[in-house]
Amino acid sequence: MNIRVGFGYDVHVFAPERELWLGGIKIEHSVGLLGHSDADVLIHALCDALLGAANLRDIGFHFPDTSGDFKNIDSKILLRRTMSLIREKGYEFVNADCTVCAEEPKLNPHIPTMQSCLSEVMTVDIDTISIKATTSEKVGFVGRKEGIAAYATVLIYKR
Amino acid sequence: MNIRVGFGYDVHVFAPERELWLGGIKIEHSVGLLGHSDADVLIHALCDALLGAANLRDIGFHFPDTSGDFKNIDSKILLRRTMSLIREKGYEFVNADCTVCAEEPKLNPHIPTMQSCLSEVMTVDIDTISIKATTSEKVGFVGRKEGIAAYATVLIYKR
Amino acid sequence: MNIRVGFGYDVHVFAPERELWLGGIKIEHSVGLLGHSDADVLIHALCDALLGAANLRDIGFHFPDTSGDFKNIDSKILLRRTMSLIREKGYEFVNADCTVCAEEPKLNPHIPTMQSCLSEVMTVDIDTISIKATTSEKVGFVGRKEGIAAYATVLIYKR
Repeated sequence: MNIRVGFGYDVHVFAPERELWLGGIKIEHSVGLLGHSDADVLIHALCDALLGAANLRDIGFHFPDTSGDFKNIDSKILLRRTMSLIREKGYEFVNADCTVCAEEPKLNPHIPTMQSCLSEVMTVDIDTISIKATTSEKVGFVGRKEGIAAYATVLIYKR
Repeated sequence: MNIRVGFGYDVHVFAPERELWLGGIKIEHSVGLLGHSDADVLIHALCDALLGAANLRDIGFHFPDTSGDFKNIDSKILLRRTMSLIREKGYEFVNADCTVCAEEPKLNPHIPTMQSCLSEVMTVDIDTISIKATTSEKVGFVGRKEGIAAYATVLIYKR
Repeated sequence: MNIRVGFGYDVHVFAPERELWLGGIKIEHSVGLLGHSDADVLIHALCDALLGAANLRDIGFHFPDTSGDFKNIDSKILLRRTMSLIREKGYEFVNADCTVCAEEPKLNPHIPTMQSCLSEVMTVDIDTISIKATTSEKVGFVGRKEGIAAYATVLIYKR
């Protein structure tokens, strides 16, 4: 079997005076996410799923938050590099399904723009990038609006 | 590659004077789950995994909780519609693996009945529907018995 | 389609005077994880993903924590038994991608040893076992250092 599955999970906490970047786009909101990079939790979960499927360690291994190189970096650059890494190992992308778990803001109106953005960065068909939004029904750290969690699953295959 | 993976996650909180519906069946318990529909958290995670695999947005997009149409609706109806949506896009179901994370009640005795119920609703072989139960070891919102979380992963393929 | 996906999730809480076992190896740390077995949360998530993919119920079904047989058992024994169960049903392993969500200790230095250990126990190629580490950014039960959560996704196929 030349097909492989990957799964990624990431969390970032809300912080004042930060921009909110999700799925490669900036979303107007009263708070943003805290992180060494732009804290795009959706892209980070997706990178981790891709790296995991290809058995290439994880996002912290390739892009450590102790490195000045990645300070406030646009996560789209990390995603582009991740795609290069999996292609260099001989893998092609099949599809990704991402889930953003956030109490607010409402993400549904932004999803087509995110899909378009990510498919361009990854140079893959837009129909292969699914993004879903859900809440945590006011419970847990997501429900208390302390932060956002994201899940991603991917399939890749070897040429 | 004509195969695709999907992943769904959902949360509902416990509430008094509600029935507990899980995997399409009613389970006797002191509390139930709160939601606009019957709050069947397992079916909702499964619907989201199926929609995500087919890149058909998410359960909130198709069955919004602001619509009176879905007030107290049986989630099996949502699952049946979801299967129609993915089949209309040319996909066939391969398998699903669902995980219910709940501190109580004990779900193990109910799992074969849930599997039988879901496979009938989806018109798929019972051996393609896996349901697993776990707890959160008394920590987090699941551990504090504030609610139940469910995860589902699926494979589908294009004819 | 003779390929199937599975997903596992597990949680164990920290406790004093326990050893910390993760990915089949002992890691030096001030606290360990509490459990009926050695509480190797990564192996448990992986077993559940494998059992789910093969539709063979879950780890609690096969190795109940009410049984004295599994008291303080090495989870590598449970993983070996799980691999036998899926092979007896005619399945071959394709790949696994595991994610350990822990605030501490730092797991990155231990990952190659874990991969080597698990691939030996499972008698599969080391390149098919991915292990990733992440934190929960100080929020939630993982962020408060109450415990560790692990996610695993796998592909298997029928010969």
